[in-house]
Amino acid sequence: MKIQVVTDILAANDRIAEENRRLFAAKRVYVINLMSSPGAGKTSLVEKTILALRDRFRIGVVEGDIQSTADAERVAALDTPVVQINTGGGCHLDANMVREALPGLDLDSLNLLIVENVGNLVCPAEFQVGEDAKVMILSTPEGADKPLKYPLIFTESQVMLLNKIDLLPHLDFDLEKARRASLALNPSLEIFAVSCRTGEGLSAWFDWLAGRVSAVREGKGR
Amino acid sequence: MKIQVVTDILAANDRIAEENRRLFAAKRVYVINLMSSPGAGKTSLVEKTILALRDRFRIGVVEGDIQSTADAERVAALDTPVVQINTGGGCHLDANMVREALPGLDLDSLNLLIVENVGNLVCPAEFQVGEDAKVMILSTPEGADKPLKYPLIFTESQVMLLNKIDLLPHLDFDLEKARRASLALNPSLEIFAVSCRTGEGLSAWFDWLAGRVSAVREGKGR
Repeated sequence: MKIQVVTDILAANDRIAEENRRLFAAKRVYVINLMSSPGAGKTSLVEKTILALRDRFRIGVVEGDIQSTADAERVAALDTPVVQINTGGGCHLDANMVREALPGLDLDSLNLLIVENVGNLVCPAEFQVGEDAKVMILSTPEGADKPLKYPLIFTESQVMLLNKIDLLPHLDFDLEKARRASLALNPSLEIFAVSCRTGEGLSAWFDWLAGRVSAVREGKGR
Repeated sequence: MKIQVVTDILAANDRIAEENRRLFAAKRVYVINLMSSPGAGKTSLVEKTILALRDRFRIGVVEGDIQSTADAERVAALDTPVVQINTGGGCHLDANMVREALPGLDLDSLNLLIVENVGNLVCPAEFQVGEDAKVMILSTPEGADKPLKYPLIFTESQVMLLNKIDLLPHLDFDLEKARRASLALNPSLEIFAVSCRTGEGLSAWFDWLAGRVSAVREGKGR
């Protein structure tokens, strides 16, 4: 009999993710798993999204970081319920970490849960946490060759935000090349070109997300 | 008897890294392990370093990527010996991957070997590959809070290049804050503020590296 290790880890994770997913469905909470390289703008997007949608929806956040509570403090400053997960070296969140964080949030009072993953374009894409949608950020300074080099996160995501478009005049970044390469990997990927700094393009993202959160809140499925 | 897994993986890696290190020492090749987030400028730095130092030293490159040969092609275009490692999903290089790549290079003809790791600010820092120095890049668009959130790579590195300083006028990046936070984790960290795009600041890095490569070539130790 062969000893299977990697398969079992992922299968065990998927079972817990499915339990999380059933819990979120029962509570009518829409959940996104937000992923990107370090410094692409995840926490800035969380802040902007909270400010744009908190009048319509009740929002909670799980912050994943190797250490520190810096990001959770930014969210808490917006009077938003937040739980910080410190992975202690771990390079991604998994379903069990998110499950362990849930008692810190009142799911009955939430419509939207944002799980901000560890900054890493590789490992987080392998581990579902029970989310309805994986949302990734690619920031323009990272370059348009990233789909070619880190394909899994592009194929796993439902949404990609191309952030920091305010820097385009100062970069060699080819927006259309990045868009084409991403769609070649994942033809159904929703792409929003945005700047969290200037606010440009964010309203389309807010509309997309609000549509999903509303549908789940009203029990119209996911 | 307890089953030890993680410890054994790292210990086994360290043993192979030590073998690599002995081989590099016998061949008088100075080796750097170049690490950063995706898109921080590793391959651009490799290109600039080759162009600056190839008249003085014989340089070889090992390119680590999850897939594709895009970076190796950029290096090969500079008539520089290069071997591409594709990790097939793996988020970092380890000592054995580098050992397996070495038959593709003629170490007897090299003075400097640059190992460009997978773009990831987390996992590569845990795995030595036999290098003389870990060199990391932090790019200004990533933000000055990275030392706080991804500390291991800052403590493990001997050199940090703060890249993309040409973008400083367009960012909120606080260079002194990044410098202080990095030195708080690692007081002996050598820091060079550079722009691979404009060339600003690179000569100090070239000088630092040339000094190390010369010393090893002349048998004056590492």
